[in-house]
Parts: sequence; C-alpha cells; structure tokens
Amino acid sequence: MTSPDDIRFHVLDNGLRLAAERLPEARSVSFGIWIEVGSRHETPDQEGAAHLWEHLGFKGAGSRSALDIAKALDLFGGHSNAFTSREHTCFHARVTTRHLEEALDILSDIALHPAPSLEDLDREKDVVLQEIAMVEDDPEESLMESFWSELWPGGALAHPILGSPETVRAFDLPGLEAWRAGHYRPERMLVAAAGGLNHDELFAMVERRFGALAPGAPLPEPPRGDYRPAVLLRERDAEQTHVTLSFPALGAADDRRFALAALNAVMGGNMSSRLFQEVRERRGLAYSVYSYANSLSDRGVLHVCAGVDPERTPELLACLREELDRLARHGVTAEELDHARDHLLSGLFLSLESSEDRMSRLARNHLVLGRAVPPEETAARFEAVTLDDVSRLARELLDFSRAGLGILGPTVDPAWREAIRP
Amino acid sequence: MTSPDDIRFHVLDNGLRLAAERLPEARSVSFGIWIEVGSRHETPDQEGAAHLWEHLGFKGAGSRSALDIAKALDLFGGHSNAFTSREHTCFHARVTTRHLEEALDILSDIALHPAPSLEDLDREKDVVLQEIAMVEDDPEESLMESFWSELWPGGALAHPILGSPETVRAFDLPGLEAWRAGHYRPERMLVAAAGGLNHDELFAMVERRFGALAPGAPLPEPPRGDYRPAVLLRERDAEQTHVTLSFPALGAADDRRFALAALNAVMGGNMSSRLFQEVRERRGLAYSVYSYANSLSDRGVLHVCAGVDPERTPELLACLREELDRLARHGVTAEELDHARDHLLSGLFLSLESSEDRMSRLARNHLVLGRAVPPEETAARFEAVTLDDVSRLARELLDFSRAGLGILGPTVDPAWREAIRP
Repeated sequence: MTSPDDIRFHVLDNGLRLAAERLPEARSVSFGIWIEVGSRHETPDQEGAAHLWEHLGFKGAGSRSALDIAKALDLFGGHSNAFTSREHTCFHARVTTRHLEEALDILSDIALHPAPSLEDLDREKDVVLQEIAMVEDDPEESLMESFWSELWPGGALAHPILGSPETVRAFDLPGLEAWRAGHYRPERMLVAAAGGLNHDELFAMVERRFGALAPGAPLPEPPRGDYRPAVLLRERDAEQTHVTLSFPALGAADDRRFALAALNAVMGGNMSSRLFQEVRERRGLAYSVYSYANSLSDRGVLHVCAGVDPERTPELLACLREELDRLARHGVTAEELDHARDHLLSGLFLSLESSEDRMSRLARNHLVLGRAVPPEETAARFEAVTLDDVSRLARELLDFSRAGLGILGPTVDPAWREAIRP
Repeated sequence: MTSPDDIRFHVLDNGLRLAAERLPEARSVSFGIWIEVGSRHETPDQEGAAHLWEHLGFKGAGSRSALDIAKALDLFGGHSNAFTSREHTCFHARVTTRHLEEALDILSDIALHPAPSLEDLDREKDVVLQEIAMVEDDPEESLMESFWSELWPGGALAHPILGSPETVRAFDLPGLEAWRAGHYRPERMLVAAAGGLNHDELFAMVERRFGALAPGAPLPEPPRGDYRPAVLLRERDAEQTHVTLSFPALGAADDRRFALAALNAVMGGNMSSRLFQEVRERRGLAYSVYSYANSLSDRGVLHVCAGVDPERTPELLACLREELDRLARHGVTAEELDHARDHLLSGLFLSLESSEDRMSRLARNHLVLGRAVPPEETAARFEAVTLDDVSRLARELLDFSRAGLGILGPTVDPAWREAIRP
C-alpha cells in the first residue's frame, strides 16, 4: 500500500523526531506536533497545566498576537486544532500543500514560543473554567471523568485532564513557565506529517523551527497510582442513568493488543457486538451502549458504557454481568472472530484514505513502538489472532474481582454494587 | 478540479434521481440514499415518524434480520449510518470499492423494504425514548430543540425531529406504514455517490434495486408554521447557562447564500470572527461561542450560541447585542470580507479530498438546486461577493425586531428579554 521510500524517519541533533509519509495523490498535508506531556506529568498543584498550555499558545506566540494566529489558521480552512490527553499534547492541522510551511511556522510558534501576558492568563483561566463547567454538565462525560479519578487513587493518572476549578484558579505565570520548561523538551517531541509533501523540504522546515531547541532530560514523571476496582455512585437529577464498568487491560505496546481489538469488537465495539445486540436490539434498554479499550503507554482500561432508563438500571446491570461472564467463561466463537477480523481490516483500509488518520497512525506508532508500522504488518497481525488468544484474554480481563463500577443517575441504590461482586 | 465526464446524472422512469461522481484516485466509494422526508412532513399525531423509520429499517429489511444487517455493515468497516433532519432522511456509507454492490443492496433494503415486527417496533420505541432522554440531558441540545419549537408555533417545523415520548409511545404499525407509503416515493428519492465507481455499473445497480418502485405523488406537506421572535427562559440546575439568539435568514437556494456564508464567517463562524474574539478571547466569557446558518429549502435561521458562567449572563447578552448591532449598522470591512472569502475557499478545497463530503455536496446541490455545481462555480460565487452584499445582508438579517432569545440555566431573569428589545 505504501512504498518503503514514502515513509521516512529522522532524529534531529537535539533528539526531536520527525516521521513523514508522502502520499503522492494527496492535495493536502496533515501534520502534528506531538509532545509527550499530558495530565499524568502534573503534580497535585499543577493539575491542568498541560491543558492550559495547549490553550495559552493560541493567546500569542513568537511575534504573533492571538488575532494574528486565529486569522492565519482560519485562512488555511479551519482544520487546525490541538488536544491534550493523559500522556500527550498535540497541535495539528490539515492544510493545502501550499500552506504547509506557513502553518508549520504558526503551530510551531504556538507549541514552542507561547508568550501569554498576565491578562491573557486570567482570561484563559476563565475560558477553561467554562470548559470544565461544560464537561460537568454532560452526564456521561462527567461520570467518566469522576469515575476515572476513582480508579487511580493518589497518583498522577487520577486527576481530570482539565484540572479542577481550584487548581486552574491558582496558577501563576512563573510556576506555569517553570513546569513547561521542565517538560517541553525536544527529546519528548515528535513531528509527524502525511500527505502531499516533499521529504527534503519538510526536513529543512522542521530543522529550521525545531533545531535550535536546547536538549535536556525532561523532569521525571510523578507517581502514577495503581488501579483499584472502585465503585462510584453519584446522584444527579436527569432523564437517564449512565453506567460504566472498568477492567484493567493492556498498555498500548502490549503484543496482545490485536487480540484485544478483536475481543472489543465482539464484546461492544460495533453494531453486531454482543452488548449492542443484547442491550439495544433485543431489550431496547439503551440508545447508546458500547465498549472500548483506553490504552495508555504502560497500562490500559477496558470500559463498558451505557445510558439507560433509570428504572431499568438493575436489568441493565444484570444483563451486562451475564454477557461479560459468558464471554469470560466460554470465549468467542470462530465465526465471531472471523467477523471481528474482517471488521478491523476494513476499518484499517478505510482509514488509510485520510491523511489525518495516516499522520495520527504514524505518530502513535512512533510514540508507542518507536517505529512506523506498515499497514500490511498490522493486517497480518489481525490475521494471526487465534481463537485461543481472544478467549484467554477474555478470561483474564473480564475478571469481576478487578472490575470497577460507576453510576450517575437520578437515584442510586447501594445494592447495585452487587453487580460486580466477584 | 473535476472533468465534466466524471459527474453524471440520471432519472429513472419512476422519477428516482441518481447523481454520481467518479474520483479516479479513490479506493473507497461513499453513497447515500436520500429521501425528501423529514420531521416537517409529519402531522401532529405522527411526530417522530420519519426518525422512527430511519431506525426501523435496521431491525430487519427484505430477507435480512437485524443481526444480518449489523454484521454486514460492520464487515464493511463501520462507516455506514443514517440520519433524519427536518427535511431529509439519509442512509449512507463509505465502503471499499469491492463492497459497493453489497452495501447498496443492504442500505436499499433498509430504505425501501423495512419489515419490523410488532415486537421490533416496541423495542425500537424504547431505544428512541432513550435517545430523547439523552438529548434532554444535554443542556445545549435540549435548549436548541425546545427553543426551535417556539420559533414555529403551530406548524410542522416546530416539533422535535425525534418526536415526543407521547407520540413515540402512541405509534402503531399500520399507522406508521401508511405514513411511510405516502412519503417514501421514488420522486422524492435521490441516490448520490462519489468515489472509485464505474458509472454504468452503478446505474445498473441502482436500476435493479430502485427501478421497480411504483411512482405516485407524495402526500402534501403539512402547514409549516411561520417564524415568530420567541423568548424561552428555562430554569435547570447546571454549571453553565446556555444562550441562543435567532434571526430569520435564507432558504438554501437563496442567491444571497454566499454573502450569508461570508457574514457568518465574520460574525461567529470561525476563530478570528468578531464573536469568538470578543466573547472568548478578550472577555473569557465562554469556552464555546459560535454562529451558524441553518438553511432549509424554503427558509432559514441564523443562530448565535454560547455557554457562559451563570453570573456573567447579563454581560454576555450585552456583549452579543453590542457586536450584532455594530455589524448591522456598520457592516463588515474589506479586510474582513477578504479573509472570510479565503477561509471559505480553503474549506471548500479541503472538503473536496473526502469522498463523503463530495457525495454530500453532490446530493445537496441536486436536492436544493436540481443540478451538480462544479467547485469552480462555487469558488467564483464566493469571489463575487461584494462588501455591499454582506453589509446589506447584515443590516437586513440582524434586526432585533425579529430576534428570538432562548436561555437555559440555573436561574433565569425575565429582565433578560430586554437584550433583544428592538
């Protein structure tokens, strides 16, 4: 699908990585500036720092004002953005090929040379406080953030990516800048690109903008905290009750990740999955029901989520328990595995048409595995998954002695915790 | 950007339209079965019928069971779906070229030959009731649906697309089937496709599946209701207050739609827009603030939306009023128009890379204008917009004697309606 020459990788003298894939037919280029810094790199008094820095670069960077930046990014067509996760901050864009250099110029300024004033900081704190309020007002998102915190007591994985209103209000510029200087190191940066690009030109562009960054080992990561099977029951006036289950699962580089993808597809990852069929199609219990694997670099969680009529919460809990117990006990069928595999292969193939997906795939493979992975290799790994791999993983992961339970709804019943009794 | 031969249009004997664009480099095909039937075609006792039929086809169609359908769509990679709007129902998919015929087979069965049992209907009512509950629990979506209803008193435009719990519960199969038979007519159908396709093969596939549909004029549309400048103040316990303004605007075929797109871009359609800069960047009032034009076939509404700290609601209202009044009074600057134009042109160009966007663009142009519109023509129309076009439109549309106001938050103050006093 890609000739070897189309993908190149290079490390600058200061340790910054550049991975690029040329797609000869593309009219646009997608690129991302990835920094291995996220909420898990924050100590308790810095909770929300990574996310706030994602915002602050847009308030002014290098010699540009906030308005200069907004105008330029709008001119490129409005496909520029940024996100912060537990482990990464990413500034990314899709632009026409002729805009590549200017877009890289602006996003690298945002990432490397943010220059917020004290007033900018105060304004942006207000914006982030509204973002926190918005998440809090979304029942499912609110449950997922508060439940996640319960899963990692006392560690840096626990806190919300956005921070809390208290930590966000307390930030001052010198403290934020010191934190940033300790983490935004070229050794932790990767520039990834895919699309209509010329490798040598891109290399020169990246060298010019990132080459002068001084190397220096990043600050150590705070203790992450260990998973515990938490139970969180939250009352909130609402039409629906939201339920989530958690099981400790796999880190992103785990060799069993292909079997996990198949297991998830059979379990709740698509329309023909067991949970979708049983919970939605046969019982009409939920509109939204799904499972997904959240894989961090060193650990992961398998989640099941559903939104249900509050009165039918016990039925949903019993149904989830029965389905997952059966999956753990009897595994999947050969027909289910074949189907999951074909689903995953089609999805992989379709994703290869998008330069954004290609860029993201290239970046994540480099960040997690330290190399580009040809689609053929991924396809072969899906093909190689056996029935035994998936059934063994189901037995190991769907273990209710390690299950967590989160519920948010108009009434909650302490007896519901029985649903995850081992 | 496209050679004339790549786009073809054909009308079957029964009136069904087929529009297709060949993209020689694409590995996938996007297609949609569009039916000109939506919530505005429902009488009061049928509210939610169009949306329920969007669901019911997936419960079983032709000789396929719900599970057969789900399995097949998952196999294609999971990019198949459906939606219902005020005016349209659409069943759509992106699939690899080799899956095109099978995918078309399944989605045409779902669209044309749904065969739900009584039990299927009961289960799917429960699913839709949960979908309604989910929308109700989202403060912004809930405000937008209830506010929209207030804008069109007594007409078919008023009611929610999903219907109400009462109308959904009351549906019976014979009534639903009669409604469907009256509206799912080939004259109201358009199949659109874009991607790696062969025109003659596609024509044959569509003829085989849609050619036998009996023609027959669809039922007349119920009275739509006329716009009124409504005020809706709803109290709900929440962290944020959501505010929306409405102004009657343009139908989708209106010649001034290019000027409206430019006006919207300057007003609140992107990051450098006046509202984003003033409300978010300078005042830190909101995380989310934007405007957009909702254009139906014969009429439209220009909306402004923001989520704000409840205590700062009066400041937000004053700020919106001041910005919109200034825009109405003084229009936009030449620099703003240039910028809006370039933003829109870049967005158009980037959208042409996606077969989904191409299919959707092709379909909408046929549904609204009765023809395909070459991208060059759209670009030329954006280029031709003058300062006077935009300023005149701003003056005409941003008229507070016709403005509506919707607010949902923990406390509401009747005095806030003064914010839209003419």
